[in-house]
Amino acid sequence: MFPPTDPRLAAQVGFILEIDRLKGVVRRNLIADASRRENTAEHSWHLAMLAGTLAEHAATDVDVARVTRMLLVHDLVEIDAGDTFYYDSVAEVDQAEREQRGADRIFGLLPAAQGGELRDLWEEFEARETPDARFAKAIDRFQPCLLNFHTEGGTWREYDLTRTEVLAKQGSTIEDGSPSLWAYTLELIDEAVRRGYLKP
Amino acid sequence: MFPPTDPRLAAQVGFILEIDRLKGVVRRNLIADASRRENTAEHSWHLAMLAGTLAEHAATDVDVARVTRMLLVHDLVEIDAGDTFYYDSVAEVDQAEREQRGADRIFGLLPAAQGGELRDLWEEFEARETPDARFAKAIDRFQPCLLNFHTEGGTWREYDLTRTEVLAKQGSTIEDGSPSLWAYTLELIDEAVRRGYLKP
Ligand SMILES: [Ca+2]
Repeated sequence: MFPPTDPRLAAQVGFILEIDRLKGVVRRNLIADASRRENTAEHSWHLAMLAGTLAEHAATDVDVARVTRMLLVHDLVEIDAGDTFYYDSVAEVDQAEREQRGADRIFGLLPAAQGGELRDLWEEFEARETPDARFAKAIDRFQPCLLNFHTEGGTWREYDLTRTEVLAKQGSTIEDGSPSLWAYTLELIDEAVRRGYLKP
Repeated sequence: MFPPTDPRLAAQVGFILEIDRLKGVVRRNLIADASRRENTAEHSWHLAMLAGTLAEHAATDVDVARVTRMLLVHDLVEIDAGDTFYYDSVAEVDQAEREQRGADRIFGLLPAAQGGELRDLWEEFEARETPDARFAKAIDRFQPCLLNFHTEGGTWREYDLTRTEVLAKQGSTIEDGSPSLWAYTLELIDEAVRRGYLKP
């Protein structure tokens, strides 16, 4: 380390170096060319791009800049807590606790007001109660469905999932944030069943 | 492919799938743990996070949301043009032409107004004439310096660069966008020379 002498800038540079580790957190789903699994940093970039591109399909008016920022930070806690696969109910048990501890440490690296603002955005995302958070969560669930379809089933196939399980897990979250993206996701899921990417 | 029936959404989904390829464009510099080279998608995420974190150090007031969006899209043309290393003057010759063709194709995938808006942001970034673009470019140059320092020289060492070459290439771009980040970068560069990460 060789921190700047200004303590504010030093905290900010420390945070920037720390979050570089998100590039090493590997998710289950594949990238679109199926060559490898996706990491959480590039996933966060992709979601931010989806939000900007698909904002007109949000259920209600959203603040695109806030949604973008929310998606950029929404998985930072995975640096400490790791990625928890949607369908892994064992890991889910202590996921919330591990993520809260991760949030304390990671957002705590920043000057207090700045770290607090990012943490609030993350808590808002997790609570999924505001229009911005509902749309952000819908985007976060829609993207892996799109990638699964385009990698001939991806994690649907790898984990031997059924259409019923996928609908139960993703349905209301995508529909609440974007009815039109949900309508398309349903078509994708049914086509996936027809093609044998997903069990009926 | 299984595009949505709505032509607007179909264009947007096509764009989203196409830009997934940025995850496969590999840059020269290493990620902070030195385990591998960085790809351009995760680089773009990191830059967006730097912009949000370091905005108070911009030379003049900037619109953080615009800078963020600019950095998210600034390297999309690399899907077609590839990453051109700063110090590679041979590749630089036709880089601009390859990038313009890439921009035509990639931004052209979106509905016209939407693609035009992103293309304008990219052109603004490249021209480096507005405060937002100057800060965005400074961030784009500062981040690899930070990663080079934290990987014991990274591309500085790999390409046998000297302090003079690094200063000539990065100096005014970082300084124009952020005098305080430039002051810190100079300290990093001098410390890198002392540690043998960079030739004098
Ligand atoms: Ca760049």
